[in-house]
Amino acid sequence: MDLNEIGMRAVMAERKLRIISPEKKTEGLLNIATALRADQEKILQANDIDMALAKENGMSISMQDRLKLTPDRIEGMAKAVEDVAAWPDPVGRVIQEYDRPNGLHVKRVNVPLGVIGIIFESRPNVASDCASLCVRAGNTVILRGGHEAINSNIATTGVMRRALAEAGLPEDSIQLITDTSHETANKMMNLTEYLDVLIPRGGAELINRVVRNASVPVIQTGAGNVHIYVDKAADIEMAADIVENAKTQRPSVCNAAEKLLVHKDIADKALPVIAKRLYDKNVELRGDDEARKIIPEMNEATADDWGREYIDLIMGVKIVDSVEEAVDHIERYSTHHSDCIVTEDEEAAKYFLDNVDSAAVYWNASTRFTDGGQLGLGSEIGISTQKLHARGPMGVDQLVTYKFVITGQGQVRA
Amino acid sequence: MDLNEIGMRAVMAERKLRIISPEKKTEGLLNIATALRADQEKILQANDIDMALAKENGMSISMQDRLKLTPDRIEGMAKAVEDVAAWPDPVGRVIQEYDRPNGLHVKRVNVPLGVIGIIFESRPNVASDCASLCVRAGNTVILRGGHEAINSNIATTGVMRRALAEAGLPEDSIQLITDTSHETANKMMNLTEYLDVLIPRGGAELINRVVRNASVPVIQTGAGNVHIYVDKAADIEMAADIVENAKTQRPSVCNAAEKLLVHKDIADKALPVIAKRLYDKNVELRGDDEARKIIPEMNEATADDWGREYIDLIMGVKIVDSVEEAVDHIERYSTHHSDCIVTEDEEAAKYFLDNVDSAAVYWNASTRFTDGGQLGLGSEIGISTQKLHARGPMGVDQLVTYKFVITGQGQVRA
Repeated sequence: MDLNEIGMRAVMAERKLRIISPEKKTEGLLNIATALRADQEKILQANDIDMALAKENGMSISMQDRLKLTPDRIEGMAKAVEDVAAWPDPVGRVIQEYDRPNGLHVKRVNVPLGVIGIIFESRPNVASDCASLCVRAGNTVILRGGHEAINSNIATTGVMRRALAEAGLPEDSIQLITDTSHETANKMMNLTEYLDVLIPRGGAELINRVVRNASVPVIQTGAGNVHIYVDKAADIEMAADIVENAKTQRPSVCNAAEKLLVHKDIADKALPVIAKRLYDKNVELRGDDEARKIIPEMNEATADDWGREYIDLIMGVKIVDSVEEAVDHIERYSTHHSDCIVTEDEEAAKYFLDNVDSAAVYWNASTRFTDGGQLGLGSEIGISTQKLHARGPMGVDQLVTYKFVITGQGQVRA
Repeated sequence: MDLNEIGMRAVMAERKLRIISPEKKTEGLLNIATALRADQEKILQANDIDMALAKENGMSISMQDRLKLTPDRIEGMAKAVEDVAAWPDPVGRVIQEYDRPNGLHVKRVNVPLGVIGIIFESRPNVASDCASLCVRAGNTVILRGGHEAINSNIATTGVMRRALAEAGLPEDSIQLITDTSHETANKMMNLTEYLDVLIPRGGAELINRVVRNASVPVIQTGAGNVHIYVDKAADIEMAADIVENAKTQRPSVCNAAEKLLVHKDIADKALPVIAKRLYDKNVELRGDDEARKIIPEMNEATADDWGREYIDLIMGVKIVDSVEEAVDHIERYSTHHSDCIVTEDEEAAKYFLDNVDSAAVYWNASTRFTDGGQLGLGSEIGISTQKLHARGPMGVDQLVTYKFVITGQGQVRA
């Protein structure tokens, strides 16, 4: 099927889906969860083919781990779909309602975004996670996954489409592009006639490629060069707890901390405590000259380090003279995902929270909380690091737009 | 000055502007209005140079009219800036505030979008309109106007910058790119390091060029292939009033009607009444076969007409069999700006309002109300016809984003 055909089907399905009742959509989603469990064997067999090819092609063990499906992981996928099914339907919600002096009645009402394109890499669970979030908010979705997972994605998408159809929902609400060539991906990025939004799910390279090539509006997600600033008025034990948690609890995710800034007045005391915690967890520290005077075994940070997202057990360390210098550094190098100050000084905290312009700014808490579930937004389709539309975790409620519904009695403009 | 220098200055100014008090910003904006009036002669002289060049280059009379500034028009610009100054400052507004079970306190707070790029054509008032809206919401702006208006824009921008500086606001809150080459415009569209948003203000060609070339997130505004559907249960006089107003009151704007759909059961009676009104206002009608059976003097509509935005005294006319056919036609050809049903039948109205997915959908009122002022949103920077971020008229309140401000007592993630 060519992309125009897929696009047209997505649009036609969206026109049906947008007016389907919340209960019916819930039913469709719950049926997907049931079907994922019932058809587990089919999905695992397809995944076996992908895994065999992956081994043949010498895929790294960590990439193989991302690609691998197990009964437990499929149960996780089904559970995630159930969570989304339980989330209140945002479509039709009235944001604002008022009368104008001329008697016009104006409502702003939430409606689906429309057709959402998702370009993702090798994790096959992304297909069911994203598809369920889109459908909950009345959107149809066109998925384009990586070639390594193509058999898993075909199987999963097939199961989901049948489950929707059984529940009386349009099966074209969920479609997969099976041609995994770069050319087709590039065409998808420019399918402005059919796609309302494009969300890349994956690493920095994928996101940059989409931003450069797409004429469809893009929501950028993910890149996190996350900072923790330990102020001179910090509680050192609290700082050590937060840094350890933010760096080591799950170093491969975007809300994990990458940089540690320490105020010079507390560095002598705080840095040895924090560094010990990190070394105990096998973190490599890369410090500036001042930091290395305090902890000589630190490796040397280069200019290149400050802008980098390691996504690994590595942390850059810098000594700063003031909260102002910390903020300047963060504003220069942060990807504006999540940044944190640890301090007991309310004034320093206020300065930091007001002046750091990131999707999430923290005072005395781990940056690992930048997550839809943790912040009470439900499952998320990604964490937006751009400023248009939504910022930070994007759940079901962020997958809608609004329209003005205006009712008159024949009013015309003078 | 090169674009990187301009971008850097805009970012530095934005960091100052975002934390300036609402009162101070109001003062800066009022000072701009005062300065536009005080320096009127300077601006008019610069405009004279542009006008002389325009005549020399054989610019059309209607284009010359757009370019021309007069004391009245400068007064209008000053007045518009005062209106924006009077609008409540959205920055710092708390959208949502709650506690999580682990004791984290979460706030979602409105913050400026950041640095906004505006690419516009020959109307010199766009510079002061857009700049004041951006500054009100704490954003800095980089303006790039057409070469025909370059002297007017340099003068206006200079006056505004001095007025901001006098009021103690960063003058780099407003900058103009004086190099009006296409190459520089293309570079601006890809200035992702500095620009948060790009808003093209102008015709379809400009907007398409920006959408195709930009990697900076774009807000599409403007194109309006606007429909009015006269249902079989319409009040014919009301329908004639609305169609006449929507088509002829100001045919050059995006919320003017372009297409008339009439239910077959009422066409014999309604179409002659409506057509007479339109012919009296010198509107050219282009009908399908059924419409031309009723009004034989109508020109013939071609397939090409249905998707076109005329922005002129021309209207396409089509007879439809049902409200469903009207909705299908609109969903196929509309630019999703504004579309209207005229009917006394609540059920038909509900079907139309639910199923037409446009920024504004109307029941028994002229589409000319799709306007920030008319809908109570204040002055507008444009009318968004895309779905991300904002839809329909975008006023000051739509020129902000939000951030999560999270306060803890040392919480870490388990």
